[in-house]
Amino acid sequence: MKSAHKEMMKARRRNICLVVSYDGTNYHGFQRQTPPVIAVQNVLERTLEKIFGDEIELAAAGRTDAGVHAIGQVVNFFTDGSIPIERVARAANGLLPPDIVINNASEASRDFSALHSASRKTYRYRIYNCSVMSPFERNYAWHIAKPLDCGAMREAMGHLVGEHDFSSFRAAGGADISPVREMDIASISREGKIITMIFRADGFLYHMVRNIVGTLKDVGSGRLMPDDFRSIMDARNRGKASPTAPAHGLCLMRVDYEK
Amino acid sequence: MKSAHKEMMKARRRNICLVVSYDGTNYHGFQRQTPPVIAVQNVLERTLEKIFGDEIELAAAGRTDAGVHAIGQVVNFFTDGSIPIERVARAANGLLPPDIVINNASEASRDFSALHSASRKTYRYRIYNCSVMSPFERNYAWHIAKPLDCGAMREAMGHLVGEHDFSSFRAAGGADISPVREMDIASISREGKIITMIFRADGFLYHMVRNIVGTLKDVGSGRLMPDDFRSIMDARNRGKASPTAPAHGLCLMRVDYEK
Repeated sequence: MKSAHKEMMKARRRNICLVVSYDGTNYHGFQRQTPPVIAVQNVLERTLEKIFGDEIELAAAGRTDAGVHAIGQVVNFFTDGSIPIERVARAANGLLPPDIVINNASEASRDFSALHSASRKTYRYRIYNCSVMSPFERNYAWHIAKPLDCGAMREAMGHLVGEHDFSSFRAAGGADISPVREMDIASISREGKIITMIFRADGFLYHMVRNIVGTLKDVGSGRLMPDDFRSIMDARNRGKASPTAPAHGLCLMRVDYEK
Repeated sequence: MKSAHKEMMKARRRNICLVVSYDGTNYHGFQRQTPPVIAVQNVLERTLEKIFGDEIELAAAGRTDAGVHAIGQVVNFFTDGSIPIERVARAANGLLPPDIVINNASEASRDFSALHSASRKTYRYRIYNCSVMSPFERNYAWHIAKPLDCGAMREAMGHLVGEHDFSSFRAAGGADISPVREMDIASISREGKIITMIFRADGFLYHMVRNIVGTLKDVGSGRLMPDDFRSIMDARNRGKASPTAPAHGLCLMRVDYEK
């Protein structure tokens, strides 16, 4: 039944790919929810249905959690709607609420999947490191009052780069898939009170970035040494790592595709 | 009656000065409103009353409009409350909503007035100049889709510096006070899609920054020449200038006091 529905969707003429930004503050994550609970996907699908004139089912590169933001989320969907591709973004942005924006729309080949074709994803995590929180960062950065040692955090992050078993940073309820991922960027920089961390990998386990950041914060505060971070990774045991960092510091920056 | 009340307030032992930041998005401006309409002043006074234990009446350096933000608003109030000054900010921030933050609290001399002692104020106005708006800037920058010429805007802004009659940029309903102000900084810079303008003067007329920015935007778009901006100033006639720029791009950055 479900696969028949999937076949029907795939029989449609066009496969449309969108690059989407959203402020996740007012949504229960990306993935479609049952109203009155509203996710980004609900709002996008409802809007696209008005424009394309048929039922829309989105697939997304990353299913961001409640409160997580996106600057370069990628989605795709099949449609028989006839609106020219160059009019899609403007038409949708005119109907969407101002906290969800379509940056780009393009025709994709039939075998393109925003989720399965993704070769790399880049996430950013921001910390506001000051005794007094900024009212402008309350939804976009994790407030850590005590000064963090970015040098120690950077040293710990060096252990992340390469192919590793990230079981220690996988949410307890994570799916039963391989915990091995290859991370090629793990960087940290400070500009005034804002600490920005960038993580790029071929894929991420559920809550992986937030669990890594929660543990890095303990390195920055001196509760853990950079080498402890390595031992925690090697233990492949979620119980060894620190609590999950809050959602609102996280942002899906970019999704890369081969070719 | 009113002045007797004012005398009573002034008879109190302490004059406290606060530096306050707030995200103005969810408030009907700074100045106290009758509930259920809520202004920043309502929330601050209610919170300070809990901490100081007496009725609080704030005076503020600048009465920001609905949607306008502040990073360095300054307020003062008289109190007989006994909480040590070094505990005020932390105690208040623990009770305040996260969109209002006290950055600093200090004891002021009896004759200090956040409003009347101010010698200079600095405002910032931000424009997001891109065909597609960022969901993260929707409450903090004016969206102008067509490219603006910052060079032309900068040339027009040169006319603002110095002592001038700013009648052309005073809101129609502005109070009957002298329209002469001295502006010593009027700068513009672009960083990617964000255009930032800074204005510093010994005082500002009602809606003055927003009316200046509304007119500068027409210079940036080519509808007006930089010299037209000078003619509009010289006309001392609000009818000559452009419509008021929206509130949410504006932020009170800093208030300076002599000595």
